[in-house]
Amino acid sequence: APKKLLILPGDGIGPEIMQQVRRIMDWMAQARGVRFDVSEDLVGGASLAVHGQPITQQVIDAARAADAVLFGSVGDPKWASAGFDRRPEIAILKLRQELGLFANLRPAKVFDSLVDSSTLKPDVIRGLDIMIVRETVGGIYFGTPRGIETLPDGSRRGINTEVYTTAEIERVARVAFELARKRDNRVCSVEKCNVMESGLLWKEVVTDLHAREYGDVELSHMLADNCAMQMVRNPRQFDVIVTGNLFGDLLSDLASMLTGSLGMLPSATLGARGGDGRLPALYEPIHGSAPDIAGQGKANPLAQILSFAMLLRYSFDMQADAALIEAAVSNVLDKGLRTPDIMSAGRTEVNTDGMGTAVVAELERL
Amino acid sequence: APKKLLILPGDGIGPEIMQQVRRIMDWMAQARGVRFDVSEDLVGGASLAVHGQPITQQVIDAARAADAVLFGSVGDPKWASAGFDRRPEIAILKLRQELGLFANLRPAKVFDSLVDSSTLKPDVIRGLDIMIVRETVGGIYFGTPRGIETLPDGSRRGINTEVYTTAEIERVARVAFELARKRDNRVCSVEKCNVMESGLLWKEVVTDLHAREYGDVELSHMLADNCAMQMVRNPRQFDVIVTGNLFGDLLSDLASMLTGSLGMLPSATLGARGGDGRLPALYEPIHGSAPDIAGQGKANPLAQILSFAMLLRYSFDMQADAALIEAAVSNVLDKGLRTPDIMSAGRTEVNTDGMGTAVVAELERL
Ligand SMILES: CC(C)[C@H](C(=O)O)[C@@H](O)C(=O)O
Ligand SMILES: CC(C)[C@H](C(=O)O)[C@@H](O)C(=O)O
Repeated sequence: APKKLLILPGDGIGPEIMQQVRRIMDWMAQARGVRFDVSEDLVGGASLAVHGQPITQQVIDAARAADAVLFGSVGDPKWASAGFDRRPEIAILKLRQELGLFANLRPAKVFDSLVDSSTLKPDVIRGLDIMIVRETVGGIYFGTPRGIETLPDGSRRGINTEVYTTAEIERVARVAFELARKRDNRVCSVEKCNVMESGLLWKEVVTDLHAREYGDVELSHMLADNCAMQMVRNPRQFDVIVTGNLFGDLLSDLASMLTGSLGMLPSATLGARGGDGRLPALYEPIHGSAPDIAGQGKANPLAQILSFAMLLRYSFDMQADAALIEAAVSNVLDKGLRTPDIMSAGRTEVNTDGMGTAVVAELERL
Repeated sequence: APKKLLILPGDGIGPEIMQQVRRIMDWMAQARGVRFDVSEDLVGGASLAVHGQPITQQVIDAARAADAVLFGSVGDPKWASAGFDRRPEIAILKLRQELGLFANLRPAKVFDSLVDSSTLKPDVIRGLDIMIVRETVGGIYFGTPRGIETLPDGSRRGINTEVYTTAEIERVARVAFELARKRDNRVCSVEKCNVMESGLLWKEVVTDLHAREYGDVELSHMLADNCAMQMVRNPRQFDVIVTGNLFGDLLSDLASMLTGSLGMLPSATLGARGGDGRLPALYEPIHGSAPDIAGQGKANPLAQILSFAMLLRYSFDMQADAALIEAAVSNVLDKGLRTPDIMSAGRTEVNTDGMGTAVVAELERL
């Protein structure tokens, strides 16, 4: 039976970049006879508009039943005042939590042909290839107690709780160590153990796991503030970084921006393989819904296309197809085609559709 | 009576760079007849070695009695395994809390003569001048419950709590708005209101205060992950940033590193002016104790010297003297003198002492 793929384009530029992935799927069906069992549904502002909630139980169930989820992006200024319980962001937070997608893999890789689009000097970032493994179902994102309470004198107090257990830390560290073994074999674990006990436990658990099972991998520890600095000072010192939900949110966005090409970066969020061998997995671009340019044909579809390639690689074990798509993207860039976000002097500007066309043409040629 | 100044050199390079400030004080006494009532004491690893604790009650009392505290830096690998309750870092955390030093002012400024030492392209950071106002006595640094507990099954759980009250947010936002009025009149408030209720309250309180009292200042809001990206993408978009303790820790270190000259950046941490008109205040370089280069004469004393200038400006209202020291530092850099951390081709390398000598010579000349 064909693999079940759930597509959730979401808000803003989500639908138009997802459209380009559809074209690649069509090509795969025609040229290579590869077919998926694809369904599509609403999340974020798009779901709020129809169902009054950012994600329905039906979509969560469909995601659970799918072999993989390809996600666009959520967030829509129209819903800015919808209230904390109806933020579009709940869609992605719920999917992570309900599917147990605890390990967010965020590569920050510099394409040779885009080395000049970074704000960092080329000799600092050329060849950069970092993999950030961010914990995504724990920490301060989900800990309780949480909320805003009104005090007797009428003033208010906002509370959130950071919680990490041994098991939560171990399973995400394991993902980082396993990935490192297939890369440069180095893991840097990041926390604030000099201030937070949850960070101290994080460091201890990672250290213990390393000693027990991953002695062959080089492990270092770094404080989160120092890590933010080191990413700017000398980002190539890193191979795999493993960190908690909140630090991972900031540090992975920071790392992405070093590449100068946010519109190029895919991500995967993985769960634990079930007894039936299935791996819960969601793939999404790192960039957001970019409502300011939505519907104008300006969006860069490459991060979404590369997220699909990552899906083929991690979820469907279709290494050759993934490699083909990645090569097509790389060639198109080498040929000088650029969407507005990565445009520079002497290159050829194309729109969203034009970029999709170029990738498909390159796939035909390869 | 002369102003009471408490000097706490701390660990690592702290003592050797503080020595250079002492030379400037000596010059001020001789050349300008300015005298301070100076006392010096131990903090961090230095205090642990003598007193078995990172800061004594006596030092806290002395800090409270002083008109200002000039701090070096704490942190010493010798005490890495001293345990969470005896970390050298407790010295600075306790001073902040016991003296109510709630507003940490961290300027990130690019010196024209050092524009090339950044890893960012010169045209991205030339003229950069950001002021980060970080809350320093609240948030996850101090909230309870906190700690590591052992669960029935023998596994463990680490907990920290982020708490912010209306009053805590308002007073630090007020500092930011006041500073903005003397600068480019723009404040960007940073939180994660899309995930954390404490961030939502933060945003609401800043918005309310702005509407009530600071309508003349331009206010914007940004999510912390986006802020980390924007700092790399286009840092000059910021004037004053106001944020909580943890985000401020990462973002201010990130901003510092954009300048390429961590060894140049001072900071001030201020409390609330008391009924007697006294302002609790501590000044320290942004850089750490750098144990790897301690005692080798390699440390850059300029951040410590500029922290002293900031002290003269904010605590002693000695604007002329502060400006003189700042001009001396700037001239010395223009003349091409560089400590190893900021050395580049064609410049003259000097050691810690040599840099101090050059600043004093420049003060004589001015
Ligand atoms: C949309 C938002 C809730 C989310 C997060 O903060 O985790 C996003 O910033 C991300 O990094 O995936
Ligand atoms: C020393 C440490 C506790 C401190 C902090 O995290 O606040 C430092 O990093 C700082 O930014 O002043």
